[in-house]
Amino acid sequence: MKETMIYLLERPQLRDPVFIEGLPGIGLVGKLAADHLIQELEAVKFAELYSPHFMHQVLIKKGSIVELMKNEFYYWVNPDEDGRDLIIITGDQQVPPTDSPGHYEVVGKMLDLVQELGVREIITMGGYQVPELQGEPRVLAAVTHEELVEYYKKKLEGCSVEVIWREDEGGAIVGAAGLLLGMGKLRSMYGVSLLGESLGYIVDPKAAKAVLSAVTKILGIEVDMTALEERAKETEEILQKVQEMQRAMLEQGMPQSTQEEEDRGYL
Amino acid sequence: MKETMIYLLERPQLRDPVFIEGLPGIGLVGKLAADHLIQELEAVKFAELYSPHFMHQVLIKKGSIVELMKNEFYYWVNPDEDGRDLIIITGDQQVPPTDSPGHYEVVGKMLDLVQELGVREIITMGGYQVPELQGEPRVLAAVTHEELVEYYKKKLEGCSVEVIWREDEGGAIVGAAGLLLGMGKLRSMYGVSLLGESLGYIVDPKAAKAVLSAVTKILGIEVDMTALEERAKETEEILQKVQEMQRAMLEQGMPQSTQEEEDRGYL
Amino acid sequence: MKETMIYLLERPQLRDPVFIEGLPGIGLVGKLAADHLIQELEAVKFAELYSPHFMHQVLIKKGSIVELMKNEFYYWVNPDEDGRDLIIITGDQQVPPTDSPGHYEVVGKMLDLVQELGVREIITMGGYQVPELQGEPRVLAAVTHEELVEYYKKKLEGCSVEVIWREDEGGAIVGAAGLLLGMGKLRSMYGVSLLGESLGYIVDPKAAKAVLSAVTKILGIEVDMTALEERAKETEEILQKVQEMQRAMLEQGMPQSTQEEEDRGYL
Amino acid sequence: MKETMIYLLERPQLRDPVFIEGLPGIGLVGKLAADHLIQELEAVKFAELYSPHFMHQVLIKKGSIVELMKNEFYYWVNPDEDGRDLIIITGDQQVPPTDSPGHYEVVGKMLDLVQELGVREIITMGGYQVPELQGEPRVLAAVTHEELVEYYKKKLEGCSVEVIWREDEGGAIVGAAGLLLGMGKLRSMYGVSLLGESLGYIVDPKAAKAVLSAVTKILGIEVDMTALEERAKETEEILQKVQEMQRAMLEQGMPQSTQEEEDRGYL
Repeated sequence: MKETMIYLLERPQLRDPVFIEGLPGIGLVGKLAADHLIQELEAVKFAELYSPHFMHQVLIKKGSIVELMKNEFYYWVNPDEDGRDLIIITGDQQVPPTDSPGHYEVVGKMLDLVQELGVREIITMGGYQVPELQGEPRVLAAVTHEELVEYYKKKLEGCSVEVIWREDEGGAIVGAAGLLLGMGKLRSMYGVSLLGESLGYIVDPKAAKAVLSAVTKILGIEVDMTALEERAKETEEILQKVQEMQRAMLEQGMPQSTQEEEDRGYL
Repeated sequence: MKETMIYLLERPQLRDPVFIEGLPGIGLVGKLAADHLIQELEAVKFAELYSPHFMHQVLIKKGSIVELMKNEFYYWVNPDEDGRDLIIITGDQQVPPTDSPGHYEVVGKMLDLVQELGVREIITMGGYQVPELQGEPRVLAAVTHEELVEYYKKKLEGCSVEVIWREDEGGAIVGAAGLLLGMGKLRSMYGVSLLGESLGYIVDPKAAKAVLSAVTKILGIEVDMTALEERAKETEEILQKVQEMQRAMLEQGMPQSTQEEEDRGYL
Repeated sequence: MKETMIYLLERPQLRDPVFIEGLPGIGLVGKLAADHLIQELEAVKFAELYSPHFMHQVLIKKGSIVELMKNEFYYWVNPDEDGRDLIIITGDQQVPPTDSPGHYEVVGKMLDLVQELGVREIITMGGYQVPELQGEPRVLAAVTHEELVEYYKKKLEGCSVEVIWREDEGGAIVGAAGLLLGMGKLRSMYGVSLLGESLGYIVDPKAAKAVLSAVTKILGIEVDMTALEERAKETEEILQKVQEMQRAMLEQGMPQSTQEEEDRGYL
Repeated sequence: MKETMIYLLERPQLRDPVFIEGLPGIGLVGKLAADHLIQELEAVKFAELYSPHFMHQVLIKKGSIVELMKNEFYYWVNPDEDGRDLIIITGDQQVPPTDSPGHYEVVGKMLDLVQELGVREIITMGGYQVPELQGEPRVLAAVTHEELVEYYKKKLEGCSVEVIWREDEGGAIVGAAGLLLGMGKLRSMYGVSLLGESLGYIVDPKAAKAVLSAVTKILGIEVDMTALEERAKETEEILQKVQEMQRAMLEQGMPQSTQEEEDRGYL
């Protein structure tokens, strides 16, 4: 495998689909939100993305089976005849932060696929680390084009969470949540980044709920949030294990060149 | 050399061959097992794999000669007319853990070769680091497809070592032992990962013996284990030297950019 | 995005243009000088350079909008009929110092563009870190070809800053300021590197002014310097934020592989 | 510049040329030896090798001029009618030790060139770090093919330095000194590695002299060694400066992503 590949399981026909991104990041906010959306909407998986820029390992899944690290695309057909369909991406991981070209490659492949399926609008979800929370987490927003601020403000009217329009010039949005918008813009796509304030603990369902409230308001759909916290707990258990493992492996880093790790699950 | 290359010394005709992997990793478990299998079966080397992702060095071999870092493929023709033949891979090293794309490239090339030779089933061998051993090392197993658990359980009936079917969801199998199964699965191959519990010392012949007991049981062949511990001792001596050298070199890391090391064998 | 790309907004017709480089570096000397030159001359942006070797992030700009990391090309048409036109490059960042091949790729693409537009002469601007300053910062100069020392010395006669012709054999000029000259030389281009002495604080308008004095003297143009210090202050505020963010992110480095950062603006 | 390039200044016609490598490494032993050989034989430069895997910088040379990092090929026509000609490579640096694929690429390009010019035999020179020296430095030798030990032993009869045939199985030869032999072997070339024992100080003319004694004995030529120590002193002065600079730059490493260094010559 020389470059990022997408396995298309099905080629959906979608009406003006919105592309929603929720990959692992701060507090797993984006991933939690995407996973919840997928489950509540009963969205259908139609594509898998594999990349040589992901960790060189397989994960153990239920039933003692192994699977390559991957990202997954789901689609949802809006039952409302006038509504727009969705494409949602979630996954096991993003490219490690030391591999910038890998990030650009993976995000480029994502855009290739969704553009072919008719996507013009992108909403990226994630967390925004803060040292302390005052009340409920707020959602920080930024857009690809200046005129969109008003467009989204109108859609967000009456939203249950506070949305802050970012004025921190020089601030950054790192990883897929940022690159999808930045690179999408070069392809005449537009969209918004919605980041929930989070203390950055491993799994933060409150921030995910805040982000999801804003996203569903923009999309004009309703999603039951009751299962979100429970799902977050399960996720936390699984991911804590993975993370410890990876951290242990990476801390050892270079010295292992002759002794590549097969497994570190017990550490 | 721009990418991983395989030098084919001979093109064997094999009957439904099983591909057995045993490359350096925790406790050198996989490599010890593969080397022992090759010697006891008198398997024949038929291909060498070189990669620009291996360390940029040559190793000193017997007779004052030098050789590039490499992996080696052996085949074994089963004397039993109804039996299946084997392809076994072993080698000097795996790609360093900091180079994920290198891992994917090398494993992809391995699969290209064995798929062309008719391989459908893959068995990967390795070590699994544990903080302490209770009695004999057990073997941890995971498969590419759920239905294989029963398939291998049946074959393992009466096996002298305890085989545990992994339930540690979110756990990982790192390096070739994992990627061969994960990437093979995308090519309609199937197989099992067998990792022997090990304290992770440099060379662990006990874990290798445990893994080999399971592998030979699955394959329905018999292999004398008496030479394994002795061979492990020799390997330990050689590898300890190499490892010290590499560690010394890597610890110095970047600062040497104008003074690349020719040799550090005395350190 | 697999490789560095240039988006051409306009294809200017220029008379024997000189290419002036001022990208982020020590004390932001080069960038400050380039930005000031662009604003005072009212130079026109005509191209943007994007690269997968830049940080995998977008920056927040005025109006809550996001933009990929980029470098920008401006042109200036000399109102003097006998004068030469200019192409000036500035930008958000250079490729990180750990990615040499990325640097060579990006600088190669820059040269492809300006060579096509007729550039033969290159002037690179930057800072030169010194432990202490004695009086006004001096400007250190080096050229692509020996005979150019006299050529530039003549042009610099009467210059208000002291220009030192470098004799520190074995010294280096790192990044675009060096590579543009070194790689340009292989394409029959010629030019000079002008580095202003700087204590290396985040933003150093004094060093930028010194460099700009030498550059404008060489070009035979006049530029008002009064706004330079004020602009430096604004830049400092913005960049301090970005830098803190990036530093925080990079310090965490590898361990975050499953938790890529969406944003660290508050840290 | 996307890959390593060789600029051919002249295409020499050579008689069964031997390829001699002496690039920077431990104690600069190889480079000193190569530089001395070039000067004493008045060898002629005919090619330059540039690589995006070298440091992204230019070096300051005499006359305030800048030059890209490079390696250089020289040829020498043996005045003895029955003698063999030489190709000698020396240079500013090798690829950094963290970039294995870069090493393989650069060495592959070297072999492409010399193979085209008829080279079948390769002699690589370098240092071998030891914690203490007992008497004069010895030279450690290893070959590409077992039968060559006798071949070179015969040629070395009466050599003024002690040559040790390496028996440290599992030891390594890192960088171009190793890869040229390992990769050359795959192209049906043959040769010997000669490493002089060195305490690893920055510049070690004694080790260089020992290696050169063995090399000239093998080649059947005579070279005056008197200028070697003096030249070593000059080299030391220049290189100490460069090295300090690079070390300073690399220690700072990642945090500088927005502030790429233009120059650190004063540090």
